[in-house]
Amino acid sequence: MATVLIIGAGGVSRVVTKKCAMNSAVFSHIVLASRTKSKCDQIANEIKESLHVTIETAAIDADDVEALVALIKKVNPALVMNIALPYQDLTIMDACIKTNVPYLDTANYEHPDLAKFEYKEQWARDKAFKDAGIMALLGSGFDPGVTNVFCAYAQQYLFDEINSIDILDCNAGDHGYAFATNFNPEINLREVSSKGRYWENGEWIETEPVSVKMVWDYPEVGPKDSYLLYHEELESLVQNIKGLKRIRFFMTFGQSYLTHMKCLENVGMLRIDEVDVDGVKIVPIQLLKALLPDPASLGPRTVGFTNIGCVFEGLKDGQKRKVYIYNVCDHQECYRETGAQAVSYTTGVPAMIGAKMMLEGKWAGKGVFNMEQFDAKPFMDELNVQGLPWKTIEMKPDETFEIK
Amino acid sequence: MATVLIIGAGGVSRVVTKKCAMNSAVFSHIVLASRTKSKCDQIANEIKESLHVTIETAAIDADDVEALVALIKKVNPALVMNIALPYQDLTIMDACIKTNVPYLDTANYEHPDLAKFEYKEQWARDKAFKDAGIMALLGSGFDPGVTNVFCAYAQQYLFDEINSIDILDCNAGDHGYAFATNFNPEINLREVSSKGRYWENGEWIETEPVSVKMVWDYPEVGPKDSYLLYHEELESLVQNIKGLKRIRFFMTFGQSYLTHMKCLENVGMLRIDEVDVDGVKIVPIQLLKALLPDPASLGPRTVGFTNIGCVFEGLKDGQKRKVYIYNVCDHQECYRETGAQAVSYTTGVPAMIGAKMMLEGKWAGKGVFNMEQFDAKPFMDELNVQGLPWKTIEMKPDETFEIK
Repeated sequence: MATVLIIGAGGVSRVVTKKCAMNSAVFSHIVLASRTKSKCDQIANEIKESLHVTIETAAIDADDVEALVALIKKVNPALVMNIALPYQDLTIMDACIKTNVPYLDTANYEHPDLAKFEYKEQWARDKAFKDAGIMALLGSGFDPGVTNVFCAYAQQYLFDEINSIDILDCNAGDHGYAFATNFNPEINLREVSSKGRYWENGEWIETEPVSVKMVWDYPEVGPKDSYLLYHEELESLVQNIKGLKRIRFFMTFGQSYLTHMKCLENVGMLRIDEVDVDGVKIVPIQLLKALLPDPASLGPRTVGFTNIGCVFEGLKDGQKRKVYIYNVCDHQECYRETGAQAVSYTTGVPAMIGAKMMLEGKWAGKGVFNMEQFDAKPFMDELNVQGLPWKTIEMKPDETFEIK
Repeated sequence: MATVLIIGAGGVSRVVTKKCAMNSAVFSHIVLASRTKSKCDQIANEIKESLHVTIETAAIDADDVEALVALIKKVNPALVMNIALPYQDLTIMDACIKTNVPYLDTANYEHPDLAKFEYKEQWARDKAFKDAGIMALLGSGFDPGVTNVFCAYAQQYLFDEINSIDILDCNAGDHGYAFATNFNPEINLREVSSKGRYWENGEWIETEPVSVKMVWDYPEVGPKDSYLLYHEELESLVQNIKGLKRIRFFMTFGQSYLTHMKCLENVGMLRIDEVDVDGVKIVPIQLLKALLPDPASLGPRTVGFTNIGCVFEGLKDGQKRKVYIYNVCDHQECYRETGAQAVSYTTGVPAMIGAKMMLEGKWAGKGVFNMEQFDAKPFMDELNVQGLPWKTIEMKPDETFEIK
């Protein structure tokens, strides 16, 4: 029986809150806070109609540490779940340190003006969390999050040594728009239009944006163009998976999505600096965000599946081994259950599970942790019962799902 | 010997001013005025270095009729040349009526908030111009302008009856940018993204934007994808060319240009209404204009040719006749001569020639006139000596430059 403070009121937060409410034996009381209290109220009211749980709402400016401290002191939660934008990770962590309350988030800190994400500044708070005697769990979404847990599971239960990991993220959902992003357009477009990067033999290798492409035949979905990107879980996995020689991340994009992105980039619409338009200052990507469909509105109209998983190659008992672990999610089923599509669902459910691990004491520690640093088993069990069942394919050493 | 007042200081105005200065026997004194006087000064200074002509400059808000009246009274010109945006046609015409000074422009009035252009409101001032005893010459650019004169020339000198006209506008210039517009992006993108329209058997037929395509083998340039558009000269030509059964307008666009335009349109970047971005109001196409390269900056980097002309089909002495009249222009030559590329050059030179026709009394009248209402011969002669020589191809009745 615990109180949680959930910060953020977007599509992912809707899923997290609903899923917490569905696990009321653990999450007995929820306080939902965001800049716009009315968004919180809407989510709370929808949930209160169907589930017996107490939800309060509050307004909070998550950029303001003192305001956060005051809210946390007032709510006195057992855990703060940061489901806001990744720009606010540091302020919320600092408020948790000041109030000795554990912390969880789903994506690592991104500086709003630098288009650069890394764990450095969050890891730098490890000592402060240790000194406060509390735990921070970073990146408890799907990727990062479940992908890290798949890696931990492979390392702990399936392999003696993992040499190669490919993380394969396919969203085959169709929302019927010529162009829209499945989550915050700023974050999404920055990620995709940035240079790619993968890790091999101890060093990072940089690639031009969306220049490395392969066609991967995703189980239960089919063949999709997949592009090498840098993705944040790579940073912690190269530190925590022993024996690793190579790790890469691929994400699917349709040609129409990439063409729109390239054209928008060519004319400067992805710029994150201010432009002067006859005396009015505007950041182009913020206008783009205002013009594009609200990702939360895609839920009812998105059909199709996601398939996110990892292919591991390594050794077990002196033999070569290759295993593919993945989850398939149906956009329409996710929407029926939570009012959000699969991209929000696959991020929100693992956030709730991570919180459950912490509140039940199954994952415990003092300091700042990534997902793969804990026993994967209880988390993997929860995935199967909380709506994200996973499958395992034992592959032959020379087998591949790549279509050449 | 006459004073002219030129309003506007963009790429076309640079050409007009330079060409007037090169014909100082007619244009003995030039006053160049625009909202930003420094732009006028820059053009004036460049011209004064090489040509012996007196040029003054002034600041003017061309939306303000009273300010225009005051400036016209002060300058006391023999002609006002409106080389500003087509949004200002009506205010400048009204100022001319109030001061009894003849008027010339290069493009018909467009309402800034309606994305719609037509002669209606300019033609409605015919009586006022008649009453004031002065002449207004509308659309003295290339298209409209020279294309109208080609039509008048065909009607007056080559045919007894014209049944069909295709106006073919090819810009095969390469500026090296992924996307840029050769003149004001607002005007250009509105025009191209609008529905197409052509006239046949007495009625207008509407087509979806850039949906009617043909490949035309432009003489001295080569085959180019050409798309049916509505273009303003069609409105007056269907009234003034007798016996006409069909008139169409085609313009060339590369696939990259069209892809960028479509993507920008899909996300809402061509919208001309205000969008609220966290409390800041912005018109998307105005941000786009600020982001895209200034059309005036394309001059030094554009290479290649334009070819704009008309194909006429009709009867002469009871026989079928088919004639192609066109001009080819070299971007780099235009830039060397005037500091502007061919799209500005082909618009600016005819504006000067139209003004010359009026000041020399070769074209005279009271009221509001389109180009094809006068004797084409003196204008056609001037084209050959002022930098826009034209050629005529006598075609066989079943001959075509279309590649199927």
